[in-house]
Amino acid sequence: MTLAKAYAAPSPKAPLEPFTFERRAPNEDDVVIDILYSGVCHSDIHQVRDEWFPGIYPQVPGHEIVGRVRQVGKKVTKFKEGDTVGVGCFVDSCVNCQTRDEDREQYLPGLIQTYNNLDADGQPTYGGYSDHIVVKEGYVLRVPDHLPKDAAAPLLCAGITLWSPLKHWNAGPGKKVAIIGLGGLGHMGVKLAHALGAEVTVLSQSLAKKDDALRLGADHYYPTNDAETFKTLAGTFDLIINTVSAPIDWNAYLGLLKVDGTMVLVGVPDNPIPVHAFSLIPGRKNLAGSMIGSIKETQEMLDFCGEHNIVSDIELIDIQDINAAYERVIKSDVRYRFVIDIASLNKA
Amino acid sequence: MTLAKAYAAPSPKAPLEPFTFERRAPNEDDVVIDILYSGVCHSDIHQVRDEWFPGIYPQVPGHEIVGRVRQVGKKVTKFKEGDTVGVGCFVDSCVNCQTRDEDREQYLPGLIQTYNNLDADGQPTYGGYSDHIVVKEGYVLRVPDHLPKDAAAPLLCAGITLWSPLKHWNAGPGKKVAIIGLGGLGHMGVKLAHALGAEVTVLSQSLAKKDDALRLGADHYYPTNDAETFKTLAGTFDLIINTVSAPIDWNAYLGLLKVDGTMVLVGVPDNPIPVHAFSLIPGRKNLAGSMIGSIKETQEMLDFCGEHNIVSDIELIDIQDINAAYERVIKSDVRYRFVIDIASLNKA
Repeated sequence: MTLAKAYAAPSPKAPLEPFTFERRAPNEDDVVIDILYSGVCHSDIHQVRDEWFPGIYPQVPGHEIVGRVRQVGKKVTKFKEGDTVGVGCFVDSCVNCQTRDEDREQYLPGLIQTYNNLDADGQPTYGGYSDHIVVKEGYVLRVPDHLPKDAAAPLLCAGITLWSPLKHWNAGPGKKVAIIGLGGLGHMGVKLAHALGAEVTVLSQSLAKKDDALRLGADHYYPTNDAETFKTLAGTFDLIINTVSAPIDWNAYLGLLKVDGTMVLVGVPDNPIPVHAFSLIPGRKNLAGSMIGSIKETQEMLDFCGEHNIVSDIELIDIQDINAAYERVIKSDVRYRFVIDIASLNKA
Repeated sequence: MTLAKAYAAPSPKAPLEPFTFERRAPNEDDVVIDILYSGVCHSDIHQVRDEWFPGIYPQVPGHEIVGRVRQVGKKVTKFKEGDTVGVGCFVDSCVNCQTRDEDREQYLPGLIQTYNNLDADGQPTYGGYSDHIVVKEGYVLRVPDHLPKDAAAPLLCAGITLWSPLKHWNAGPGKKVAIIGLGGLGHMGVKLAHALGAEVTVLSQSLAKKDDALRLGADHYYPTNDAETFKTLAGTFDLIINTVSAPIDWNAYLGLLKVDGTMVLVGVPDNPIPVHAFSLIPGRKNLAGSMIGSIKETQEMLDFCGEHNIVSDIELIDIQDINAAYERVIKSDVRYRFVIDIASLNKA
C-alpha cells in the first residue's frame, strides 16, 4: 500500500480539507498513475454534499483524471511507465464478468465508480483529488500526447457525457443538433457536435454567451428568455441535448424537435418535471436519458479529440481553492470547467 | 351531393342525436362507401365533449369505419363497386403535396381528420356514425373479406395505434413487450404483439382481466396494484406500450425497462405527468409517443390481421344506444370495443 495525499470531504456537506489515505497495493493487472490534473464536475458537488444517494465519507471526489503512468503490473500490456493516461467515472464494471456488454457497460449493475463507491474488495474508492491512483488496466484510457494535459482532463466526464449521446443518436452531417445550456457539459457538446459535422444551435438563457458559443463552433444561438425562439425554431431539430439541471419546461423544448426527434437529458434536475403526453405523441418524439459512456467509446472520443485538437476551455486552480470553486460552479461562474493542478497538493 | 343520415353532437358536451347532412359530390378520384360498421373510440368522446381542442359542431364522430364500395370515380383504379373497405382516422394528408413522406404521413401538418376537421375545401368533415362517406382513393383501405366486418372496424384506429409502435420499435421474436391497460387499445396490442412473435406481458390494475389477457395471447399477467410487481419485473422489458389515459406514475414503469428500452405513450392523460431525469438516465431509457399510423402501414396491418385472423373483441350496439355506450367506455365497462351497427340508423 502507498500513502496518498488528497483533499476530502470528511462528512456530508462539510468543506473539503487535506486528507491522507492508503491506496491499495497494485495487482498484476493494475496501473499506478501519478495524477497531474483533475477536473471539477458538478456531480462532485452533488455527491460531496450527499444530495443524490447516501455517500461514503471521508470522500475524495474527482473523475476527470489525467496523469502519467508510474508503474505497471506484470500482466499489463497496453501501458508502460511514462505514458499519458486518463481515468474517468468508473474503475470496474461487468465487462469482466458474465454480463459482457462492452458497448453499454456504463449501464450495467457491476459498475464501480471512481469515488464514493466500494470496490470489488468492499473498500471505498477514492477519486482524482489525490496525488496517485491504482486502476485496472482495462479502465485506463490513453490520452493523446499532444493535447494539453490540464484541458484534456474534462474530456473524461464532460466530454464522454456529450460524445456518447451525440454518437448514439447519430449527430453528424445533415443533422440539426441543439445544445441546451453552455456550461461544462454544453461547451463540450458544441465542440464535439461541430467536429462531427452537425449543424449546431445553442439554446441558452440570455444572449450573454453568444460570442463564446459561436467561437466554440455553434452555427446558431438563440436566447430562451425570448418566447419568439420557441416559435422560430418549432420542429427544427433532430436531436436536442439538455445539459442543464435547472427545472426548465421540457415540453417547450420537445416542441422544437422534428418528427422522430429525440431530446436527451444529461443534466439532472432535483425534482421531476411534468411532461404532457401531447408533447410526445404528435410527432413520435422521444425523451431519453444518457449517462457517461463505455470505456470503448471513451477511448474513441479521446482519439477523435486528438485528431480534431479538442479539449475543454478551463480555469486551472490550486486544490486549496476547491471550496471557493464549488461555489462558483453552482453559480455557473466558470468558462467552462475548473481543473485542479494536483501539483498544488505539495504547497504548504 | 347526397343526403346522409347520421348521429351528431349538436354542440359541445351535448348528447348525440339524429342528424342529416349533405356529403360532397364525389370527384374522379373518390370512392363512395356505404358504411356498415363504425367503432367507438375513446377519442370520439373527448372530441364530442370538446376536451382536447376547439371542436366543430354539429359533430359526427367515427373513425373506425368498415363498409362496402357503392361507387367509384373514373380515375379510381384500386377499388370497385362491392369491395369491402375501411376508413381510419384521416382522409387526406401531405403525401399528395410537396412534403411526401409516405411512412410518416400521420405526423405531417397536412393531415385532415375523418371528422371534426375542415377538408381541403374548408368544409367540415363528418365521420363514421353515418350511412355513407366519400373518400379519396388514397385514403381507403382494403379490408380482408374473410374477417368479420363488425369486429374488423376497430382495427382502423385501435389496431393501427398499437401496430405502428410495435413495428417501429421492433416487437417480434426475442423481444419482451408489456402492454399497460387491457382496454380497446390494450387488447389489440396483446393480439398483435403475440402474433408478431414477442413475449407479451399485460400490466393491469388488478387480477380481474387475467383470464381474458391469457386467452387473447398474453404470456404473463401482473397486477399493478401489487408493489411486488414492480420489484419482480424491474429491468425486464424491451418495449412497454402505455394505453391508459389515467395519471399513473410513469417513473415506476420506466423502471421495468431494460437498458435502451422504450416506453411508448398512446393514451393521453388530461394533465402532465412528473418525470424524473433519473428514471431515464441510468439505462439510456426512452419515453416516446406514437399516434395512429400511415395509410401504408395501416394496409400492412390489415393484411397481417387477415393472415392471422385478428380482429377486435367487440360488443355490437345500435346507434340509438350510443350515449349509454359512451358512459360505459368512460367506466372501462366494455370488453373491449363497442361497434355501431350502422343499419340501425334506419330503425324508427
